[in-house]
Amino acid sequence: MVNIKEDERLNHLNHSCAHVLAQAVLRMYPNAKLWVGPVTSDGFYYDIDLGDDTITEEDLPKIEKEMKKIVKDGKRIIRHELTRDEALEKFKDNPYKIDIINELPSDSIITAYSQGEFTDLCRGGHVDTVKECKNFKLLKVSGSYYKGDSRNKVLQRIYGVCFDSKEDLDEYLIMLEEAKERDHRKIGRELGIFMFSDLVGKGLPLWLPNGFTVRRLLSDYIMNKELNSGYEHVLTPSLGTVDLYKTSGHWDHYKEDMFPPMELDKEAYVLRPMNCPHHMMIYQSGLHSYRDLPIRLAEIAQDFRYEASGALCGLERTRNFTQNDSHIFCTPSQIKEEFKNVIDLILETYKDFGFKDYSFRLSLRDKNNTEKYFGNDELWEKSENELREVLKEYGLDFYEAEGEAAFYGPKLDVQVKSALGHDVTLSTIQLDYQLPERFDLTYIDEDGSKQKPVVIHRAILGSLDRFIAFLLEETKGALPVWLSPVQVTIIPVNNDYHLDYAKEVLEKLTSKGFRVHLDDRNEKLGYKMRESVTKKIPYTLVLGDKERDSKTISYRKYGSDEKGVLEIDEFIKLLRK
Amino acid sequence: MVNIKEDERLNHLNHSCAHVLAQAVLRMYPNAKLWVGPVTSDGFYYDIDLGDDTITEEDLPKIEKEMKKIVKDGKRIIRHELTRDEALEKFKDNPYKIDIINELPSDSIITAYSQGEFTDLCRGGHVDTVKECKNFKLLKVSGSYYKGDSRNKVLQRIYGVCFDSKEDLDEYLIMLEEAKERDHRKIGRELGIFMFSDLVGKGLPLWLPNGFTVRRLLSDYIMNKELNSGYEHVLTPSLGTVDLYKTSGHWDHYKEDMFPPMELDKEAYVLRPMNCPHHMMIYQSGLHSYRDLPIRLAEIAQDFRYEASGALCGLERTRNFTQNDSHIFCTPSQIKEEFKNVIDLILETYKDFGFKDYSFRLSLRDKNNTEKYFGNDELWEKSENELREVLKEYGLDFYEAEGEAAFYGPKLDVQVKSALGHDVTLSTIQLDYQLPERFDLTYIDEDGSKQKPVVIHRAILGSLDRFIAFLLEETKGALPVWLSPVQVTIIPVNNDYHLDYAKEVLEKLTSKGFRVHLDDRNEKLGYKMRESVTKKIPYTLVLGDKERDSKTISYRKYGSDEKGVLEIDEFIKLLRK
Repeated sequence: MVNIKEDERLNHLNHSCAHVLAQAVLRMYPNAKLWVGPVTSDGFYYDIDLGDDTITEEDLPKIEKEMKKIVKDGKRIIRHELTRDEALEKFKDNPYKIDIINELPSDSIITAYSQGEFTDLCRGGHVDTVKECKNFKLLKVSGSYYKGDSRNKVLQRIYGVCFDSKEDLDEYLIMLEEAKERDHRKIGRELGIFMFSDLVGKGLPLWLPNGFTVRRLLSDYIMNKELNSGYEHVLTPSLGTVDLYKTSGHWDHYKEDMFPPMELDKEAYVLRPMNCPHHMMIYQSGLHSYRDLPIRLAEIAQDFRYEASGALCGLERTRNFTQNDSHIFCTPSQIKEEFKNVIDLILETYKDFGFKDYSFRLSLRDKNNTEKYFGNDELWEKSENELREVLKEYGLDFYEAEGEAAFYGPKLDVQVKSALGHDVTLSTIQLDYQLPERFDLTYIDEDGSKQKPVVIHRAILGSLDRFIAFLLEETKGALPVWLSPVQVTIIPVNNDYHLDYAKEVLEKLTSKGFRVHLDDRNEKLGYKMRESVTKKIPYTLVLGDKERDSKTISYRKYGSDEKGVLEIDEFIKLLRK
Repeated sequence: MVNIKEDERLNHLNHSCAHVLAQAVLRMYPNAKLWVGPVTSDGFYYDIDLGDDTITEEDLPKIEKEMKKIVKDGKRIIRHELTRDEALEKFKDNPYKIDIINELPSDSIITAYSQGEFTDLCRGGHVDTVKECKNFKLLKVSGSYYKGDSRNKVLQRIYGVCFDSKEDLDEYLIMLEEAKERDHRKIGRELGIFMFSDLVGKGLPLWLPNGFTVRRLLSDYIMNKELNSGYEHVLTPSLGTVDLYKTSGHWDHYKEDMFPPMELDKEAYVLRPMNCPHHMMIYQSGLHSYRDLPIRLAEIAQDFRYEASGALCGLERTRNFTQNDSHIFCTPSQIKEEFKNVIDLILETYKDFGFKDYSFRLSLRDKNNTEKYFGNDELWEKSENELREVLKEYGLDFYEAEGEAAFYGPKLDVQVKSALGHDVTLSTIQLDYQLPERFDLTYIDEDGSKQKPVVIHRAILGSLDRFIAFLLEETKGALPVWLSPVQVTIIPVNNDYHLDYAKEVLEKLTSKGFRVHLDDRNEKLGYKMRESVTKKIPYTLVLGDKERDSKTISYRKYGSDEKGVLEIDEFIKLLRK
């Protein structure tokens, strides 16, 4: 997806289109006062004080019509330089512009851009004539506080986007529709996956029954996979003393992203942003021989991070999330083998979910950022080289990215391409020599000497929350059958005649472990069938005379033309597949 | 178990025995300075400043010998009243006693008790002669800060207990041994169930791999049972805004038991002590018809409570625990039915765990404590009566206890008798009219009117942490097979000849879902078998020539004489049973 703000041509085009919008609004609402109209990565908007007037979505076509007139007129866009006094005089009727002028540094060159009767205070750049703004679309309107401060007046913000060709615009609009349809926040609400509540707190998802079922299935899936790969699960508290995070280095290098501390009996506690220190303490609590290594501790772990409320986004960015985390404690000579095991586990998992389009990013430190990337230079070099070597040996295609490492070590990030074309980091493997040093971890080597283990941090599904957001967007909410909260809806054609048989089928399916909903409400058959489809239930069964008498079921599969009549055992086989 | 402090006769007897102990110590350590020697629920102790001397467990028999001499001498115990000056003169060589005298109110009668050469400043009461202190036992010795303040000097505390008869003493000592053997903290450490770390934080258990397995099995057990009983699971964040807890009433009535708040973007957040408010918000987020009720929301929920560090005790009393919680939202006419369902679920669960000795306690409010038991008097009366009625209708034996209700409503507590004779509250059901009011919960009734639902709070396993502590103490760590972290140890007689067959058996058992450990270390057979028993693994398999050639296994069952030779499939059947 193109970033409009960062593409110079599109930036200028959208900037000019914002002026066309402002000109049209001023023609239609002569008392309107303009504030600012910037370009964003997705297009442009203009914030306008309409006094007692309001603009709704229904008004947008009328404004678009006026904009088209302006475009057709084809006026040139002309740049003027103004003295401060000229500028103050020119915009004297608009207190917002006066405020902007007064806040400009005294030595700045003040510019304005005109097209026909319209002039706006503006730094530019712009395209040459408004004719070029032909392929635009207004997208939505919303309220927005003046200067973003909730104590100020609410202005009206009108959003739009502009492209050079109708084809580009259409493609973009289709993509927007697609993104809206895939938005996990919308799907999550419609399917009862999760909710938020300001009284509970911003960025703290509450998982509803359907969402919990998906989470439970996912946790079980990955925990069982991990058990088969020699991991052992632990469960550790989601807080620790500040001293614990001083020992780990988080307090010095990650404090800004943490919740504030709590004082308890003269000790400071803090919600954990990561659970590495807890796993270090578990390792530290016992004596270890080289024969016991590798030790692979895994946890479905609750973590808490401070995110500015503006940065929060559904399940993608929360203040409380659940990591599919693990720390592997091994000898230096086991690093390669363990890395390969983790990569195998990732690839196996992706295969299970049908992810095919992914790439590997070797994330290195930024050598100049010694504040974030503290510690022994030699260890950094060593671990970066080691990771690179493993990847080459494994024959994996990868690219390198500086400044993307964790503060304690380099990582291999797996970037999965989403249906909307974004690169999403799902899995990560990190090599760490620092924490074993900071927590003074040891094992007794074959020769009786004390040695430091290496720690490999890894996450396969990453954060369960983000993973579920990703799945919802990829599948548009039509989860694979094994992950669907409800797998089958049973609808009796008529409760009077077919309910008993429906219950018999329900009983049979649930006894086999399937998640089945019997819709026995007194509603019309068509209504109930439509609802089952709206809820994206994989299989809808309709049971009438024929089915009851022949002990069969009629089914329809969601999202395909597949339907049929089967004996129950045959249907169970189909579900299992 | 008798409470020695509260039984007058035993109190006096133990008090006198503390004097006998002090007299013996003074004879053996003439420079010792006595501080205080009180009676506790478990016996007595004396805190003594021994200067540079220390007393260890090995010294206790010598002290006991000296005490026996004093008892045999049979001196009378004589009470004296002293003026303040007389007292100050009498104890002038002991700064601890001088300090006690100086802190006595000016009008108090100062008393001392003597036996032979020994006199102690003491309020009494005592038995008549030291002869009566014949049946005593010194139990342990530990350090203890003067006045309990860690900035003060460490005194030596010697513990003991005294009874009227040798039989009573022996019975008590056996019980103490039993309690030590059942102590879940000891078992938890030995079996790798959990650990604590001061750097992580006091009262915050870290669940080790074996412990996590037990927790996971327990959670799955109860969640699946709940699903079959019409519950729906949710997962909500373990913190909320302070406003949420003001709305619920916790902030006013439970703040002392909560963690301190955290300020985030000018909003105050707090770790939750209970998850009721979160479930209220979920109910509140949707529209509900009477037809949708009851709605049974359940959660395996992380909660946090502030406990003074002195009150913490293993998994029994922690600052972070996991509730097997649920809130049932129902119409007033559904209360009885729902209560019965919950009681049935409790009794079914107890049957699964083999709990047979339990009683029902109806916990009512203390009418005089209006600070804790706030709110509408009428609603309290109503809900207390309703609960009582349900219990009678159900034909349940129960007793009533005032002042044991939750702050928002009366409860039915199920008290299970432990192997040590304690009453432990495992399950609870609570009736609540207050929270629906505070959160303004409604449903649309059959006649279209808005009505308030009733909330039933319930916990079956209670806190998973406490439940596991209870199970460990009841079973001495020998958990039932289905809950054992490792169910079977496989030991090849000789790795050179029997390892392949052992792996074959391992493969077969794990593929059937059993948790099996193959002990292929190069250690002696006897050593490995003993270790399997020490770890209380239910089944130990030994595989040698005979087993390999006949494709069988030899097994021994933990804690019984049961052993035998079986074909693998037969053994699997045995495990399943």
